[in-house]
Amino acid sequence: MRLELADSHYGKSRIRLLKVARFEDRHVLHDWTVDVSMQGDFAAAFEAGDNRNVLPTDTMKNTVYALAHGHADESMEPFATRLGRHFLHEHPQISALSVTVTGPAWEPIEAKGTAHPHAFRRRSGELRVAEVGGTRKRTTVAAGIAGLAVTKTAGSHFEGFVQDRFTTLAEERDRVLATEINARWTYRDQEVDYDRSWEQVRQALLERFADHESASLQHTLRELADAALAACDTIADIHITLPNRHCLFVDLTSFGLTNDGEIFMPTDAPFGVIEARVARPDRAP
Amino acid sequence: MRLELADSHYGKSRIRLLKVARFEDRHVLHDWTVDVSMQGDFAAAFEAGDNRNVLPTDTMKNTVYALAHGHADESMEPFATRLGRHFLHEHPQISALSVTVTGPAWEPIEAKGTAHPHAFRRRSGELRVAEVGGTRKRTTVAAGIAGLAVTKTAGSHFEGFVQDRFTTLAEERDRVLATEINARWTYRDQEVDYDRSWEQVRQALLERFADHESASLQHTLRELADAALAACDTIADIHITLPNRHCLFVDLTSFGLTNDGEIFMPTDAPFGVIEARVARPDRAP
Amino acid sequence: MRLELADSHYGKSRIRLLKVARFEDRHVLHDWTVDVSMQGDFAAAFEAGDNRNVLPTDTMKNTVYALAHGHADESMEPFATRLGRHFLHEHPQISALSVTVTGPAWEPIEAKGTAHPHAFRRRSGELRVAEVGGTRKRTTVAAGIAGLAVTKTAGSHFEGFVQDRFTTLAEERDRVLATEINARWTYRDQEVDYDRSWEQVRQALLERFADHESASLQHTLRELADAALAACDTIADIHITLPNRHCLFVDLTSFGLTNDGEIFMPTDAPFGVIEARVARPDRAP
Amino acid sequence: MRLELADSHYGKSRIRLLKVARFEDRHVLHDWTVDVSMQGDFAAAFEAGDNRNVLPTDTMKNTVYALAHGHADESMEPFATRLGRHFLHEHPQISALSVTVTGPAWEPIEAKGTAHPHAFRRRSGELRVAEVGGTRKRTTVAAGIAGLAVTKTAGSHFEGFVQDRFTTLAEERDRVLATEINARWTYRDQEVDYDRSWEQVRQALLERFADHESASLQHTLRELADAALAACDTIADIHITLPNRHCLFVDLTSFGLTNDGEIFMPTDAPFGVIEARVARPDRAP
Repeated sequence: MRLELADSHYGKSRIRLLKVARFEDRHVLHDWTVDVSMQGDFAAAFEAGDNRNVLPTDTMKNTVYALAHGHADESMEPFATRLGRHFLHEHPQISALSVTVTGPAWEPIEAKGTAHPHAFRRRSGELRVAEVGGTRKRTTVAAGIAGLAVTKTAGSHFEGFVQDRFTTLAEERDRVLATEINARWTYRDQEVDYDRSWEQVRQALLERFADHESASLQHTLRELADAALAACDTIADIHITLPNRHCLFVDLTSFGLTNDGEIFMPTDAPFGVIEARVARPDRAP
Repeated sequence: MRLELADSHYGKSRIRLLKVARFEDRHVLHDWTVDVSMQGDFAAAFEAGDNRNVLPTDTMKNTVYALAHGHADESMEPFATRLGRHFLHEHPQISALSVTVTGPAWEPIEAKGTAHPHAFRRRSGELRVAEVGGTRKRTTVAAGIAGLAVTKTAGSHFEGFVQDRFTTLAEERDRVLATEINARWTYRDQEVDYDRSWEQVRQALLERFADHESASLQHTLRELADAALAACDTIADIHITLPNRHCLFVDLTSFGLTNDGEIFMPTDAPFGVIEARVARPDRAP
Repeated sequence: MRLELADSHYGKSRIRLLKVARFEDRHVLHDWTVDVSMQGDFAAAFEAGDNRNVLPTDTMKNTVYALAHGHADESMEPFATRLGRHFLHEHPQISALSVTVTGPAWEPIEAKGTAHPHAFRRRSGELRVAEVGGTRKRTTVAAGIAGLAVTKTAGSHFEGFVQDRFTTLAEERDRVLATEINARWTYRDQEVDYDRSWEQVRQALLERFADHESASLQHTLRELADAALAACDTIADIHITLPNRHCLFVDLTSFGLTNDGEIFMPTDAPFGVIEARVARPDRAP
Repeated sequence: MRLELADSHYGKSRIRLLKVARFEDRHVLHDWTVDVSMQGDFAAAFEAGDNRNVLPTDTMKNTVYALAHGHADESMEPFATRLGRHFLHEHPQISALSVTVTGPAWEPIEAKGTAHPHAFRRRSGELRVAEVGGTRKRTTVAAGIAGLAVTKTAGSHFEGFVQDRFTTLAEERDRVLATEINARWTYRDQEVDYDRSWEQVRQALLERFADHESASLQHTLRELADAALAACDTIADIHITLPNRHCLFVDLTSFGLTNDGEIFMPTDAPFGVIEARVARPDRAP
């Protein structure tokens, strides 16, 4: 029996890279985790243990550090693009690859009202993400945000849903809505100010989350996507995943107390998940 | 501008379910985490906040508990299949869904040489997985294993790989190979003894890992896949992911000591990852 | 043989509490995790399975929700104090207890330059902590901060240390210093503006971390402690734990490149840990 | 103002060590994480940035690897003892230290009914722990187990507890009891077969958990401690921590179904915690 190999790829994950750009008046800090994954003519390695085409993942790691050299203040997207092109250029057996860069933002510590030139604190829990895919013909650049935790204590309801014999959920006219925004968007082309676009999308997501009246997390997802696409015309589509971090209303009536939307119990499990992609018409699937 | 919605789905994740089957002479314990995800006619919810077609994820959770009732000793795959069929049957707006069940094995505590009838300990760190996908026309059943940690201290080398200017890795003639086997296989049909097949695949993976001479983790992956497909003819293909949990050789020469393959430093990051699918010819992509 | 029971305590951990204070013009959000632990006359429960003195941990949880009612905008420290006093007052078998409250800060989303009244984002990764200990005679109030991630890219060296035959570390004249400040301080009495004191200590820790020239993480710890005690005279002592999140210098010379303090590899393990308490003289041990 | 330094210590955490003992007929694998922490004459480092007495934590790490050399099959306790003595002997400024070793068990893969000589799988999720404390006068050896997950589906009740106005928990005549046994015991002296003692304690904990009729988790804790002290006369006392991994009974009556102890929902938070130490009379506090 002849078995067939499919969908094979390999690479290095969690390459940790800290870059310090040492400008005259201040330093800039980039704290990244890089993942590299490759496809190509690697069948002999799988099938016969023949490593002649195999670029070791250790070399991928070394290449990340070597190519970061001299580019300490470069943003995620151009770095990932350069890295991907390097591998494709140097190693003809690679047919396609992806490079993902992820990291938290660090901002200068404020001391006596001014930004310190070389001391930083991590800004928040969320992560910025860049994801570059490359083949010999084409490069695609995507960016994203992971784990942007948001909660609204008004402006959210959930009513009029399907009822069946297993329904116990009451209609909710005013609930607490807690989620973590996870988004990934693709750029129309590569003539983009990536840092500015990322901040535009992030701010649009936050503002629309705050402002809109939510009829469901599905509804919120669509509103967030529309806001991002409206705010930033360099992006072609956006994929959003929203976990529903349920904050359960705590019934205090057996203690003679009335809970007027004051006391909730956040839960980790189970949680709802809503996921969708919204695209400009020319980029619909 | 009219934006288009694509790839939308939603559901409930991490529904925790513990089932106790109370037989006369002994109990059996199933400790599962269930994820449900649905696609269908939900555009109005996303686009207009119209929930008339929305089955709340809270109801999905309730349904898991209700349908588990009376089936305490059922295996993962038939439960996931029944659950999926229930949703498709009851709710015409659903076009496709997936149900994933994950859990550790619990085995009876051995006391004085015999298996205790109602006290259990968790067998090991690895998880069994079942994944059922359903549409109105077709049901597919997959199973898997996650996090089966294995290490071999001989029978592994890595040589003859590509060298470039960023290569620093030395050829390794006898290395420690540590990984966690993650595998997912699909069944040819649904007339299967799922428990027996799962044990067959697991044992085949373990034995081949132990026995073969590894020329790379790619090579090991292919060997594992071949062993699984040979051992269990009810499966059509197998997808395997192997992280390379690098155990770095510790150079002790500066302390006047020779490390004869005795002392290593395991690392968490970075790590290599190898991933591929191997299929019988009739199931190749 | 008569065995003796010692150091027994029990309680409920990870009670999740979300409080919404609904003011006219804005809401305030408190997102807490509460741990309660008790000591007292519980020997009969341990030794004879006699539960007559046992307050169930489930009741502890209920009490957290009931006592939070009507106090949505209360700070951590007075809530923990009230909760502790309630248990001691109601249940004479309790001789001592501790209540710990932990949580991230949430701040209003900024939309079009103004703070939104009821939409929030999590401010950062660090956690505020309050810890109240109570007996029938005495209440002690401590507060803290956990996981305040900071890095400085200049102003840190490590030289002149002990050398022995296992030393390989080179003297470092200019290194990257990365840590997470974990601090816990006790208040002199309970007439304290806890929110203001907490912000004072946090700001003092950040500023001193930025400003001082570090000769070691031990040295930094002492500087941080001194700064906190100088900035906030309501606190009696401070205990600080600093993990050393080593950022390894990446040697690029074999690639023909010179790393001028630009490229580092952060690591998770192993890590150094420095821990000490600094007290005003009247509170020394 | 002269501030006082107290309780200072420092060291290296999470030193990862994999040892391969290469016997003729088989290999033995030890997969450890080592933590070292020291106290002593280090005030000048904290107070003046004077590192003359500071042994770098990097050297502590190197010493772990160097001292492991030639002792690949040594157990945790003698290794930790040797390591501690080395530091105390070499560096007079150290007054006290602790060495903790933690790790999972690996066992040979069974292939065709026999134990493979050099391929291993991780036995289970629990960890073995050894903890050696040393001063210039005295060495103490403790051992332990962490995360031994156990569940019993009969033989557990919880009744007759305190009722107050916040009680909602019903008396439970037959509940599912799920916990993770965490234990730490000290040895009477150092003439001990540590491996055998550890297995004796572990087996005694498992058997008593299975056999006894539990009136509460407090009661179970005491039974476990008694069993360990009875089974292994080399130990002086035992400290046990038991989280109560609540498995909530799922009420199905609103769906027309009766849950006869078959369907439960395990929860992660909140959880009860019971903690106590039980000592032979001569070692009571």
